[in-house]
Amino acid sequence: MTTTSPESAAAAGETNDPIYIRRLELSDHERGFVALLSQLSTCPDLTASEFATRFAELAAQGDDHVILVAEDTSAPERRILATGCLFVERKFLRGGGKTGHVEDVVVDAAARGRGLGLRIVRRLVEIARDAGCYKVILDCTPELRAYYAKCGFVEKGVQMAVYF
Amino acid sequence: MTTTSPESAAAAGETNDPIYIRRLELSDHERGFVALLSQLSTCPDLTASEFATRFAELAAQGDDHVILVAEDTSAPERRILATGCLFVERKFLRGGGKTGHVEDVVVDAAARGRGLGLRIVRRLVEIARDAGCYKVILDCTPELRAYYAKCGFVEKGVQMAVYF
Repeated sequence: MTTTSPESAAAAGETNDPIYIRRLELSDHERGFVALLSQLSTCPDLTASEFATRFAELAAQGDDHVILVAEDTSAPERRILATGCLFVERKFLRGGGKTGHVEDVVVDAAARGRGLGLRIVRRLVEIARDAGCYKVILDCTPELRAYYAKCGFVEKGVQMAVYF
Repeated sequence: MTTTSPESAAAAGETNDPIYIRRLELSDHERGFVALLSQLSTCPDLTASEFATRFAELAAQGDDHVILVAEDTSAPERRILATGCLFVERKFLRGGGKTGHVEDVVVDAAARGRGLGLRIVRRLVEIARDAGCYKVILDCTPELRAYYAKCGFVEKGVQMAVYF
């Protein structure tokens, strides 16, 4: 038995797992992070300055806003193959409780089927639990219900939206 | 024609509308705000200190976190009859876009049917649009689809949740 997680073991070079899951870094702008998001939604590229500005805004939220990425350490350019976001909403209800919101989960089309998205989502759920959230929620298409069920999610309601 | 909104007119005493819609204030702890939330979810009362701490945390988010309340100005105790929350999530996708999240909408059981919830939600949607959000989303039970449709919301997906 070891308590070393697969990710930290990979980081320490103790396994052959080439995937390193870590928090987003400023330099990920050059590792295809924005291009990866474009596989999820409309996502024009950002200049380095625009990326840095948004990065700083989110970093100022500390552990209330976490973006995880899966880096391919086996490739020279160390591309980002998957990502997912968690932000923590502080409420007055539930005794001043907190809700974790999972957003913007996407896996590069060429890297799907390897469980990268599930690893990221499970890690985000752990982070939310450790932060004291009483629940974690996300919205998805009906087709993805079974996918998120693998991470312990159950259907709870309907998502409504207004687009401007 | 006048451009004065019903709420600002009421605030100025220009109409007989006793409902004043405004942002949450620290003193709303004594106007039944927490008790109102208990009609939505598990919501033990907070001490004045606990309420003030959470209030300050949220106030620090500025216009990225807005709680509106409907105050009954006709009652001596000026109770809070309805509330709703909007918070703004900053993203990297959509050219560094923003999403508005509507949460914790509740109307006092004795004040339902007067359109207070709709007035609050419509105002939150306006605030989100003015803040530059490209969309506003919320989660609800299937029974509330028609209610939110009155504010322009359409069904978009399913909400999934993990409870700890």
